[in-house]
Amino acid sequence: MYKIGVAGSGAMGGRIGLSIKEAGYDVTLIDNWEEHVNYININGAEVQTESKKYSIKIPAVLTENVSDKFDLIIILTKAMTSEMMLQQLQDKNCISEDTAILSMMNGLGHEERLSKYVPLSQIYLAVTMWTAGLRGPGQWLLEGKGSIDLQRADGKKDKCTEFILNILNEAGLNARISNDVFKSIWSKATLNSVLNPLCTILDKTIYEFGTYIEAKNMIIPLVKEIVTVAKAKNIFLDSEELLDKIESAYPKEAQGLHYPSMHQDLNNGRLTEIDYLNGQITAYGKKLNIPTPLNTMITHLIHQLEMKI
Amino acid sequence: MYKIGVAGSGAMGGRIGLSIKEAGYDVTLIDNWEEHVNYININGAEVQTESKKYSIKIPAVLTENVSDKFDLIIILTKAMTSEMMLQQLQDKNCISEDTAILSMMNGLGHEERLSKYVPLSQIYLAVTMWTAGLRGPGQWLLEGKGSIDLQRADGKKDKCTEFILNILNEAGLNARISNDVFKSIWSKATLNSVLNPLCTILDKTIYEFGTYIEAKNMIIPLVKEIVTVAKAKNIFLDSEELLDKIESAYPKEAQGLHYPSMHQDLNNGRLTEIDYLNGQITAYGKKLNIPTPLNTMITHLIHQLEMKI
Repeated sequence: MYKIGVAGSGAMGGRIGLSIKEAGYDVTLIDNWEEHVNYININGAEVQTESKKYSIKIPAVLTENVSDKFDLIIILTKAMTSEMMLQQLQDKNCISEDTAILSMMNGLGHEERLSKYVPLSQIYLAVTMWTAGLRGPGQWLLEGKGSIDLQRADGKKDKCTEFILNILNEAGLNARISNDVFKSIWSKATLNSVLNPLCTILDKTIYEFGTYIEAKNMIIPLVKEIVTVAKAKNIFLDSEELLDKIESAYPKEAQGLHYPSMHQDLNNGRLTEIDYLNGQITAYGKKLNIPTPLNTMITHLIHQLEMKI
Repeated sequence: MYKIGVAGSGAMGGRIGLSIKEAGYDVTLIDNWEEHVNYININGAEVQTESKKYSIKIPAVLTENVSDKFDLIIILTKAMTSEMMLQQLQDKNCISEDTAILSMMNGLGHEERLSKYVPLSQIYLAVTMWTAGLRGPGQWLLEGKGSIDLQRADGKKDKCTEFILNILNEAGLNARISNDVFKSIWSKATLNSVLNPLCTILDKTIYEFGTYIEAKNMIIPLVKEIVTVAKAKNIFLDSEELLDKIESAYPKEAQGLHYPSMHQDLNNGRLTEIDYLNGQITAYGKKLNIPTPLNTMITHLIHQLEMKI
């Protein structure tokens, strides 16, 4: 039977893995959080949606104990632990030359990092608009609707892409094959590179950030740096569309009352994904000789704040 | 008798005014803080130095009650209230065409703002390296040594410059006439435009800021923007020297254990002088068509934080 592993089975990894499991597939949740893995194996994965509460029996395993060979591994670790995860999965012979590696992680440059472990032709990239939350170890809060954009990392089409697409859609995850997944990845990363660090630095909700009369003038040059770097990588982003999307998060009825996830990471004593967002823009800018002073400064400011945790 | 007014008689205004008074001059302290003015008139100005504590009888007056015509007015208000002060002094006929206006304020662009009220030939600019503190209304803490650089705002030399120089030196304030006071003003403003806002944004002491391994790479591009704008205004700053001066503040034995004054302002619910530091760099950059993305972003970040007070 087609074996699927979800490497990094936190909030989002769980949402994806549990949905696929419910569609009848053989899914294993892989994670480094012992309490979480134990809870799932003893109690099942507990799911709370808008309308109901139920639990799903699903195998969960600590990364150090994983031993299966998988046909598909969905990577949903935090960006900074993805390489360690790939290394461990490789050491445990979980990856064959037929294994598809599907990254759904936030941030930029994952295809470059993952291709140190498997060829680009085995790597698939996806962007998800689903959201997910954990209420505690093994307990998910799954609300709202989303979608997934998917493409092989080298841009080529193959049977496997369609196979993955079918699995995701059987799981009700509303997926489609993209002709330009990098545009989706970069668009999402741009949104995450603006409000995430700025609200974190300022210790403000998205709404509070947006009430500053010069908020737009604050974000325009930051977005411009990202769009310029993207363009040099043949990824053509629409600045106006991105600015609109950022501003659409300000109202209290939208995401306004929330602190972005980076703020939550820092306040919970966790390192952030800044190096895969603004920090990656800075790294690309350096390589391409494109100045990115704002992304660099913002990366430094977040690293300075990380020193406090 | 030669009449001297100190407009803005807080910590630094007091230090200068009291020193001149002690040298035997006719000095009036002018301020908007009623409790402070009353305290001084009732108890005298109380001074605590490294070695002694004493009080000085000196007239203090609320700006709204000032009525004298002054020969010399030393401006040591906060940057954002200097114009209102000048307007009030003019309305009260305190300024004649022979009155020398000596600005010792921090920040940039004061000569431009003050010259809306009096001709540039009546304006003198000084940079002070003295420090000063207030322990409460009417109570000064005056420690350490300092110096003052002085020049007429239009760069010309005149008798009055020498007259002011003599007064300051009779007061033991270690003054000298500069050939390039703008270089001193911009140098000090550069220092104030780096650690002041960055430590404020990060809520870090100077030492904590300096322990970040990339601290130097963080400040170099910021200093570079300022040096470039200065150069376009024919003010030639030495980047290396400025960086050295900034870094020399990091050690705990230097200013490391302190939060900069801007941090203190914000934490005490006061607006900052950001528009006269990084904000003024941004304004000059715009006029001169020199990009200053970092100074602009930092100005926005501080204004965002000011919204919280």
